[in-house]
Amino acid sequence: MAKVAPRTLSGFMELAPRDQMKMERMMQALRESYSLFGFTPLDTPVIESAEVLLAKGGGETEKQIYRFQKGDSDLALRFDLTVPLAKYVAAHYSELSFPFRRYQIGKVYRGERAQRGRFREFYQADIDVIGDGKLDILNEAEIPAVIYSTFTKLGIRKFKIKVNNRKILNGFYALNGMSEKAGEIMRTVDKLDKIGPHKVKQLLIDEVKMLPDKSENVLDFMAIQGDNAYVLSRLEDYRGMDPTFDQGLEELITVTKYLKDFGVPEENFAIDLTIARGLDYYTGTVYETEMTEHPEIGSVCSGGRYDNLAEYYTDKQLPGVGISIGLTRLFYVLNEQGLLSEELVTSPCDALVIPMTEEVGPAVAAATALRQGGVRTQLYGEKRKFKAKIGYADKIGVPFAVLLGEDEIAAGELSVKDMRSGEQKRMKSDEAAAYIRRNVEERNRTAIISEK
Amino acid sequence: MAKVAPRTLSGFMELAPRDQMKMERMMQALRESYSLFGFTPLDTPVIESAEVLLAKGGGETEKQIYRFQKGDSDLALRFDLTVPLAKYVAAHYSELSFPFRRYQIGKVYRGERAQRGRFREFYQADIDVIGDGKLDILNEAEIPAVIYSTFTKLGIRKFKIKVNNRKILNGFYALNGMSEKAGEIMRTVDKLDKIGPHKVKQLLIDEVKMLPDKSENVLDFMAIQGDNAYVLSRLEDYRGMDPTFDQGLEELITVTKYLKDFGVPEENFAIDLTIARGLDYYTGTVYETEMTEHPEIGSVCSGGRYDNLAEYYTDKQLPGVGISIGLTRLFYVLNEQGLLSEELVTSPCDALVIPMTEEVGPAVAAATALRQGGVRTQLYGEKRKFKAKIGYADKIGVPFAVLLGEDEIAAGELSVKDMRSGEQKRMKSDEAAAYIRRNVEERNRTAIISEK
Repeated sequence: MAKVAPRTLSGFMELAPRDQMKMERMMQALRESYSLFGFTPLDTPVIESAEVLLAKGGGETEKQIYRFQKGDSDLALRFDLTVPLAKYVAAHYSELSFPFRRYQIGKVYRGERAQRGRFREFYQADIDVIGDGKLDILNEAEIPAVIYSTFTKLGIRKFKIKVNNRKILNGFYALNGMSEKAGEIMRTVDKLDKIGPHKVKQLLIDEVKMLPDKSENVLDFMAIQGDNAYVLSRLEDYRGMDPTFDQGLEELITVTKYLKDFGVPEENFAIDLTIARGLDYYTGTVYETEMTEHPEIGSVCSGGRYDNLAEYYTDKQLPGVGISIGLTRLFYVLNEQGLLSEELVTSPCDALVIPMTEEVGPAVAAATALRQGGVRTQLYGEKRKFKAKIGYADKIGVPFAVLLGEDEIAAGELSVKDMRSGEQKRMKSDEAAAYIRRNVEERNRTAIISEK
Repeated sequence: MAKVAPRTLSGFMELAPRDQMKMERMMQALRESYSLFGFTPLDTPVIESAEVLLAKGGGETEKQIYRFQKGDSDLALRFDLTVPLAKYVAAHYSELSFPFRRYQIGKVYRGERAQRGRFREFYQADIDVIGDGKLDILNEAEIPAVIYSTFTKLGIRKFKIKVNNRKILNGFYALNGMSEKAGEIMRTVDKLDKIGPHKVKQLLIDEVKMLPDKSENVLDFMAIQGDNAYVLSRLEDYRGMDPTFDQGLEELITVTKYLKDFGVPEENFAIDLTIARGLDYYTGTVYETEMTEHPEIGSVCSGGRYDNLAEYYTDKQLPGVGISIGLTRLFYVLNEQGLLSEELVTSPCDALVIPMTEEVGPAVAAATALRQGGVRTQLYGEKRKFKAKIGYADKIGVPFAVLLGEDEIAAGELSVKDMRSGEQKRMKSDEAAAYIRRNVEERNRTAIISEK
């Protein structure tokens, strides 16, 4: 028969089993962390009506979207989890209690040009808090605590949550008479990290057409950095000149004030006035998160406060605050850099039961007993030589092989072989279950990400 | 601004938060049960090349599939998890260890005519064991144990795993000289439950064009039922006449023999000679699972043994055995019938911390302490009247409200209100965490499905 080559599309991640186990571990850490803060899981369709998904329309989105006809329906695959959330909240408004807090970890689709480390199908892991009409600043203050908890659970210790407030930026631009150029200025300032202040200043003068002293003002403002108290004190110098600025400053003070009560160490947090986040969408606090020893990865968790989640679907004012982790890309980069733990058990099972006799009943019963004792157990059923059986155990990386020969059966015991140390012990099945579980739990206490 | 109606496509399930929590619970039970048997999780793309997905081609599949162009690529959404598995195993053959055991819980797409309880996007939850060249019968014998463990974990007690063997059927038809009509006969016999033996006999005579005595033979054979020992003894009468039949009988004996060692009670298991499963694909043991008090739901977990997983992609002979649960439909039906537990905690959090003072620092610290104590905690940050705050607690169905007024703050304590009983107690935050956790764990020990 003619064969079709079994290929996977480029830009679509498909992991080998042991890598997949690591990915599952990351997802589980996110689910646990998000749940701990009272976010409820949601699951929305991958396919939506194109009209609904593109209600906002325009821009890059429309070009990248997977859109197609089925019958006479105009359909599209979701390209993020925010638009489906907006639709969900608008559609289910009367069934929900506000503030409504949800997390969603799901695949989204963008037909970008394929290149290494860029994906067309990728997981986003989002949380959002949505208010009905209004939403207290305390929700914005809580986001760094969620990020801190999540990153810590993943095993990352060297990271910084960078926070700014769009009202501060907008107020600052207003009081310098630069409101109209605010967007352009922000995009230029965004290059500070890459090209430095000198070149940014030149761009502000040459391309944004600003007077030199005004561009100097911008750079001076962006250069304000230090610990929270210092940055806030420098911002106090601008107070009283623009109401938007003042409101932003108050918000930033509140966000900073409760850090300690939220359990976020100051070393993992920084006010950074250069953070703007591109989208017009954001109106208050904005967040980025950097792995401090891997700045080349960019922000691994970003988001902010917005005023109008679902304006394309409803007249209801639905302000919110949310953050998103690009999980597929994060996994890819961490894996590439060898930052995923090798200590965790990533084999399909914790114990492989190997029958050594013709009659396999006792081996079956042993596997059942181990499972009842909470051990992930595979029964090896193939009739092969011992060497092939133990070779399989080795290849799947199982922590323990459990051997059942005539001696063991006669004694009502199992031989439990630690595949790492090679050590082999005889014990009863309940002892074996406890011994294996203890050992595996110990190894699995390691976090999934292991920074060097 | 003109609004777009925020609708969800028909045939696409989108659950309210508390129902979604129940769905998550079901998925978690499946993940745990499948993992316990040493199946490793896989995740394959939702989109595949149409050429790859339709390598087998033809039939209903092609009509129902979501297929579209993107650039010059001919793409399609997966319509099951078996074809992607075949592709995966063929593509990653050299990286895998055989037998390869994987589970996958993922969405699949079929553009069927939308009707109540039928879905166009739905979860399947599959396990498969794939051998390289051959695969021992012990793997087929293990499947009922996986089904038993899974259903028990879900909370279903009244169910029956029905097992047959295609070789027995094929052998039986061969020795009656009906091999050519086997497919038609099986499809007709499949109606036994619905229309009864008398009408089936008529159909066999009128439509399948069988002689009356031959159709009698078929019905006599299908009518063999009773406990395993009895059915097997009746099947012994046919031994020695057809080699395929004999092999099937040996396999069925093996599958039955280890039930007890696998921990499967006989009452949850039955040999049922009327089970055939439609697909030509199956070649050995076949499985269906019925909720005995809800036969109208049909089989909720089905599958079987096949000889050639990936013949469209590779010359390698890859026999396997697998089962599939149509999770979305199962959830839908159970929910409709009120069979999902109301005891489980389905609120976004276990504790809602409500600040009763202007200064919210102590409430923030209390929420942090509860989280550190493992309690899923939401901090209520909105500045509203007490009645609105406690009304919110009530509406989200949270088990505990934690109140922080001046008295509590002065005493360094929390007031913990049990929202069901109304009982309110003062305690320190670590006591509160332990108390809430204990109570919630107790409620969550209930299985997700609760049969009346």
